[in-house]
Amino acid sequence: MADLRTPGTPFLALDTGRMDRNIARLAAHLAAFGVPLRPHFKTAKCLEIARRMSGGDIGPATVSTLREAEVLADAGFTDILYAVGIAPDKLRRVAALRERGVDLAVILDSTAQADAVGKASRASGTRIPALIELDADGHRSGLAPDDPRLTRLGADVEAGGGELRGVLVHAGESYKCRTAASQAAAAEGERAAAVHAAGRLRDAGLACPVVSVGSTPTAHAARSLEGVTEVRAGVYVFHDLVMAGLGVCAIDDIAISVVATVIGHQEDRGWIITDAGWMAMSRDRGTAAQELDQGYGLVASLEGEVLADVVVTAASQEHGIMALRPGSPASLPVLPVGSRVRIFPNHACATAAQFDRYYVLGAGGSIDAEWPRIGGW
Amino acid sequence: MADLRTPGTPFLALDTGRMDRNIARLAAHLAAFGVPLRPHFKTAKCLEIARRMSGGDIGPATVSTLREAEVLADAGFTDILYAVGIAPDKLRRVAALRERGVDLAVILDSTAQADAVGKASRASGTRIPALIELDADGHRSGLAPDDPRLTRLGADVEAGGGELRGVLVHAGESYKCRTAASQAAAAEGERAAAVHAAGRLRDAGLACPVVSVGSTPTAHAARSLEGVTEVRAGVYVFHDLVMAGLGVCAIDDIAISVVATVIGHQEDRGWIITDAGWMAMSRDRGTAAQELDQGYGLVASLEGEVLADVVVTAASQEHGIMALRPGSPASLPVLPVGSRVRIFPNHACATAAQFDRYYVLGAGGSIDAEWPRIGGW
Repeated sequence: MADLRTPGTPFLALDTGRMDRNIARLAAHLAAFGVPLRPHFKTAKCLEIARRMSGGDIGPATVSTLREAEVLADAGFTDILYAVGIAPDKLRRVAALRERGVDLAVILDSTAQADAVGKASRASGTRIPALIELDADGHRSGLAPDDPRLTRLGADVEAGGGELRGVLVHAGESYKCRTAASQAAAAEGERAAAVHAAGRLRDAGLACPVVSVGSTPTAHAARSLEGVTEVRAGVYVFHDLVMAGLGVCAIDDIAISVVATVIGHQEDRGWIITDAGWMAMSRDRGTAAQELDQGYGLVASLEGEVLADVVVTAASQEHGIMALRPGSPASLPVLPVGSRVRIFPNHACATAAQFDRYYVLGAGGSIDAEWPRIGGW
Repeated sequence: MADLRTPGTPFLALDTGRMDRNIARLAAHLAAFGVPLRPHFKTAKCLEIARRMSGGDIGPATVSTLREAEVLADAGFTDILYAVGIAPDKLRRVAALRERGVDLAVILDSTAQADAVGKASRASGTRIPALIELDADGHRSGLAPDDPRLTRLGADVEAGGGELRGVLVHAGESYKCRTAASQAAAAEGERAAAVHAAGRLRDAGLACPVVSVGSTPTAHAARSLEGVTEVRAGVYVFHDLVMAGLGVCAIDDIAISVVATVIGHQEDRGWIITDAGWMAMSRDRGTAAQELDQGYGLVASLEGEVLADVVVTAASQEHGIMALRPGSPASLPVLPVGSRVRIFPNHACATAAQFDRYYVLGAGGSIDAEWPRIGGW
């Protein structure tokens, strides 16, 4: 029986029990509001997982690349939202997917993009649906909900030949909200921004059927989803140390870990060296800005038991240095050369992207399958 | 004719003119010492580039994973050094490569590893060659050159059934040396450590044919290589912003860049948003610790002209935010939606690893080929 001692290290292990629990938790939370989830494929990038996020079948999906959309389409998904501002020269691939019968929608926040969507719609003989991206918190892209350009942009989409599908917002700053109260406030800010903008569009005589909000922290923290038609989230499927640092999940909810082998020691410096460097963990240091810095990852035994205060304090390409947190009263565990450990990552999206597959861990500690990941754009 | 406007963004462009110049520069520097280079495959991970690093043919190579060794072996490379401390359960793959006629050597710094090498040697009927890893600067793995355990470890390798091939050192701290003088000192420290340890082994009656040193900064800075039999380097093939920040290269030597498309603007904040986020650039922020922080990358026109003071100041998975450096007197360039830019990376190894191929840029700006990269372990 293959288990966590079998594959060559470093590799990515997926605890499906934890994943299924994470999926069920968010599903239950949203079911109470009667608002559907449009799971984001960007974290898992794996069809087997996408189906579980969709309740075991196909369902609505969010993607961060057209490559993800094409892979989902090949697997039968037909309702897909590409949630990164559309670049004009990507519209050919969008139109090609729509010609295959996929209801693929794009997002935009400028007249230049609306013009491009209109042009591509006319060229392809399909009305490409577009959502207007909103900015609720100064995080990234999008129009402010009260931006005077909003209604004109909505009209431009329709006039150009595209279809105004609705509005979308992502409260990216919620990743910095350290309390449940501030996460709930971010969720309400996200909801209010989207509902306000949708109201302005409707008041201007435009249809705005979709009101799409979401981020993993706000999806869990929302106390009202009035006026919202769908919620998006991706990281929730695995969770990670950043989410644990925000209190959105517990460490025991983190469903992916990197399995590494001890390859040396520097006893004088209190270092244990493994074969999981940044090529395995990624360079993501999301917890560096949090109260508890988890280095490049938090170390656990192969059985998943966290080793007190042992973190990956430094990483080069194929070396990780594990040590006690500064000031820890704990003792460094005895881990001879050849020992294996599991390392929980800062950021599930970034660490999982370093691997081409998941080794799927069953209930008894056996590896039951290998699930491929997709990459590229 | 395909050019930098043709492939879908983000993609990785390789300027072979710059690469060939980088290769020639280090070759000329080392030729003056009469010491051969053992190029490190970990940066490029591409056979076409490996052959160029080997002067157009096959040659000695350094690797950071056994997967790299296997790919090089498939292409006819027969002299390979796996320069990450050996994990016992990786020795089966090492032995399998040796059975195929590849002279693959490993490195180690502990008796536990020497025992494992001995055991695998006896089991496979081949004397697996091992170099003892040395630590010249407290960077990572390795015994100090005057560690009392050194000669005992050398004897253990031989007694167990392995072959003591020599010593190896990597002055990883040279990545923090900001002046030519300190880089030269690091190079001399690296050389002295290796030569001293080799002398101790020889004084103890052990053979130590290989004295292997190297890092990109020290390889270029070395003023003496007396007693050294080979130099290793990898990043030199492309260079990057970290190397430019150290003065090891100029910005105009950086041979890889990420091509991105503008997808939006936040005029009020001075932001231009592109489709190259950390999934394209990697999360590496190597220049954050340098005098000039280059963010997630330094922005240039599609023709390769650096845009004054424009850097990628923030990145999410598929979004990069370009802005002027804080305090810059420059104006933000006019880059409408759909414009393409090139972004030079902090760390060539990390950024290149985010892609599965190089788009190979010819002299006239045409894309002449796609060269695949390998990944995994």
